[in-house]
Amino acid sequence: MQPDPPAGAPLTPSIVFGLLQAHQQTAALRAAIQLDVFRAIGQGSGDVSSIARHSKASERGIRILCDFLVINGLLVKEDGHYRHTPASAAFLDPTSPSCLASVAHFLSRPEVLEPYGHLADVVRMGRTTLPGEGTVEPENPVWVEFAQSMAPMMAPLTGPLGAIVLGGRTGPMRVLDIAAGHGLFGIEIAKQNPQAHVTGLDWAPVLRVALDNAKKAGVQDRYDMLPGSAFEVDFGGPYDAVLLTNFLHHFDVDTCVGLLKKVRGSLKPGGIAATLEFVPNDDRVSPPMPAAFAMTMLGTTVAGDAYTFRELADMHKQAGYAEVTCHPVPMSPHTIVKAHT
Amino acid sequence: MQPDPPAGAPLTPSIVFGLLQAHQQTAALRAAIQLDVFRAIGQGSGDVSSIARHSKASERGIRILCDFLVINGLLVKEDGHYRHTPASAAFLDPTSPSCLASVAHFLSRPEVLEPYGHLADVVRMGRTTLPGEGTVEPENPVWVEFAQSMAPMMAPLTGPLGAIVLGGRTGPMRVLDIAAGHGLFGIEIAKQNPQAHVTGLDWAPVLRVALDNAKKAGVQDRYDMLPGSAFEVDFGGPYDAVLLTNFLHHFDVDTCVGLLKKVRGSLKPGGIAATLEFVPNDDRVSPPMPAAFAMTMLGTTVAGDAYTFRELADMHKQAGYAEVTCHPVPMSPHTIVKAHT
Repeated sequence: MQPDPPAGAPLTPSIVFGLLQAHQQTAALRAAIQLDVFRAIGQGSGDVSSIARHSKASERGIRILCDFLVINGLLVKEDGHYRHTPASAAFLDPTSPSCLASVAHFLSRPEVLEPYGHLADVVRMGRTTLPGEGTVEPENPVWVEFAQSMAPMMAPLTGPLGAIVLGGRTGPMRVLDIAAGHGLFGIEIAKQNPQAHVTGLDWAPVLRVALDNAKKAGVQDRYDMLPGSAFEVDFGGPYDAVLLTNFLHHFDVDTCVGLLKKVRGSLKPGGIAATLEFVPNDDRVSPPMPAAFAMTMLGTTVAGDAYTFRELADMHKQAGYAEVTCHPVPMSPHTIVKAHT
Repeated sequence: MQPDPPAGAPLTPSIVFGLLQAHQQTAALRAAIQLDVFRAIGQGSGDVSSIARHSKASERGIRILCDFLVINGLLVKEDGHYRHTPASAAFLDPTSPSCLASVAHFLSRPEVLEPYGHLADVVRMGRTTLPGEGTVEPENPVWVEFAQSMAPMMAPLTGPLGAIVLGGRTGPMRVLDIAAGHGLFGIEIAKQNPQAHVTGLDWAPVLRVALDNAKKAGVQDRYDMLPGSAFEVDFGGPYDAVLLTNFLHHFDVDTCVGLLKKVRGSLKPGGIAATLEFVPNDDRVSPPMPAAFAMTMLGTTVAGDAYTFRELADMHKQAGYAEVTCHPVPMSPHTIVKAHT
């Protein structure tokens, strides 16, 4: 997102050049992660030659790369030495527990990048140029990578989602986590409620990642696996709550309504369906991060979208839910939508 | 460039996601240009279906693309209709005389983009991964495209450069325009001084573009061509002024000093060497546009750089010039450096 120019500022083409060159920002951050530059800056003296030695790279390359990251707000430069910003220390230094470097790996996968190499074709056709159903093609290995890589991005969201789904509820309950991926959302329910039993649904290779995470969290004795497609397997149940996290955005409205109906059929009376989504305002251009997510769905799916709350509420009502509420997650681009049978 | 977060703002990874997804901004602008979206918005009603019809594209694709351009500040959206911003009207609508769409074509060429697909390798080696000398490899056809495409970006700079070189001077004079490209800088001198005679030096296929432009400007009878490499051909002369526009940044310091010496040898006593460059401050991280240009030189050349004024002045002094002055061009990322024999 570009800041507005000050009122009365002269008209220059800088915004046009900025967008034309924006791809260099992505390339620079990926290169810095691959070359372990953020670890070098965290632990070394921050001068070009020590970073270059650590990264086994040229001094010219490191100097221009690090200057570029300073220009783009990701590092600071003091007396010719590079230092972390609070954001790079927290989210890019591999020694930080909240490091997101693996997210960069996922977002650099060919499946994720390829459509943007010929986006005009995508816009013409109105769908991904990836084969079949794009990233949601059955058994697409991209989701194993997603499960392994995107957990650090999702971890801060699990607490708020668990609190909204449970609302202080204790005692025995059954929870289905659809498209569980890394499994962190269901696992969080099991952690917040020691009597909750969670079933993770996803492709079998993905569920192995979720089960590993359940073991790490010590909840594997209350974690079942239901391998397969959310559109094909019998959900079993009945459940007290069903989670649909980062899933509906891949599909068109009719598919979402059909899935929400199937979910409702697996819920106990008074049960809860909780979706986690990028939810833009009705104008579809704000807030910037959830609104911009539609571009990722254009590039990688056949008919997915960043749905507004109005649209999501309407899907739930078509699927027979009684009450639909909107819960933006503070300090994140995500929103939780909660509905009752 | 990212704006600083407000003081005390909570720490979020939004800057990291922003950079990882920045490549979508470049893809979106390129796609919109290819699909003639900016013409459609300038002349139509600005609703999704009329733009989609004009662009022969899907409504889903156009809606998500245009929303994304709004999010990134390039369009506005009012009551569901897309409108030009002042910048998109001036610089992206093909009916505008200052339209820069051809610049996008140049910046999308494989030679220009390819190194950013594996920038970590470039940083390791400290030089472009393009073969030979990169974009300055002799007879590289990229410069014919540059001459044809980048003229709209350079046109606003010709007036200021002409004024600084001439300083009100009239009467007969000879000017050499090294790496003339589109030829606009030398042509401007010929326009400002009807007795100036200009010699354009560049590869022969590039000079055909310059000669076309000289004809359009009506100065072809005072425009000579000197085809070849600036490092190999005899400059002839002596000249009253030699122009070196957007050229030194492709080379290392020693090569620049050698060329500046050769230029000095072709100048009359009191003659002027005028370079046009991206000149960052000594910190090399400000102002953002000239400083970021070093990343383009890292990706596409063996040893080029965005040189500071201190470095450029030192090169000129090493080459024997007497007086070196710095003239930032208002409302542009460029600086003119003027030196006397």
